[in-house]
Amino acid sequence: MSTAIQRFSPRGTEVEIEEGLGLAPRFDADGLVTAVVTDVKDGAVLMVAHMNAEALALTIETGVAHYWSRSRKALWKKGETSGFLQRVSELRIDCDQDAVWIAVEQIGGAACHTGRRSCFYRRVPLGAAPSPALEMTLTEAGLTFDPATVYRNK
Amino acid sequence: MSTAIQRFSPRGTEVEIEEGLGLAPRFDADGLVTAVVTDVKDGAVLMVAHMNAEALALTIETGVAHYWSRSRKALWKKGETSGFLQRVSELRIDCDQDAVWIAVEQIGGAACHTGRRSCFYRRVPLGAAPSPALEMTLTEAGLTFDPATVYRNK
Repeated sequence: MSTAIQRFSPRGTEVEIEEGLGLAPRFDADGLVTAVVTDVKDGAVLMVAHMNAEALALTIETGVAHYWSRSRKALWKKGETSGFLQRVSELRIDCDQDAVWIAVEQIGGAACHTGRRSCFYRRVPLGAAPSPALEMTLTEAGLTFDPATVYRNK
Repeated sequence: MSTAIQRFSPRGTEVEIEEGLGLAPRFDADGLVTAVVTDVKDGAVLMVAHMNAEALALTIETGVAHYWSRSRKALWKKGETSGFLQRVSELRIDCDQDAVWIAVEQIGGAACHTGRRSCFYRRVPLGAAPSPALEMTLTEAGLTFDPATVYRNK
């Protein structure tokens, strides 16, 4: 972890952080940045996850997405169990450097643990009365894999 | 705020949360969900922000993006100062309901306070040695507005 943190530049002034070319991530109180993951094929948002310094460093170094699992409190090489790795096509960081955007090739076609391509398979209707009912989207609602099979005995 | 929270369904079982049609957001310890904002025109990720229950309820109700500003600790109707509102074209929620994805029409063309269309205007080269230098992207590096003018006297 200390090695990973040493990869990054120190946080500088606001101008340096926003306009500079030093990678100086702002990890939150839990040591994490937010990672938005899109499908390089069509730009659909596949998932939102988190990276600690080690996960970010490994993602940059290997070109394969690594995260920090907040539920398991462990480094998480996405696809290690299912085989459905994410090959990173492009990685970007935002203005204040507390979020990254990665465009990935999703091996196996599904990023969501429910078996769907994207975690964002339900739409919230706008202008709705209190407690609107969600709508399944046509494009993302179908299962790409069966979780019961893929995660069996794992 | 209490009214806003009453809009949402109670958190149920894992299956209800992931497969059901009840909107039951999981707000974190600070009362927030993550919001990923993309440009409805081409799918580019414009910014990442956060919504509390009130901001989420207002976004659903009005179709205009509202967030919670963590720095100002206040409800934030995006564009209230600059005039650059975000009209929500579609709002989706993810499997465990702790993140939303909104596709927006960005009035004024720029979502980032630095004057750029997207907050993600710098690329992190992959496979790089420690502390890689960021690269300005060709498409997002130019200013759409001049922050000094837009935010003048505000």
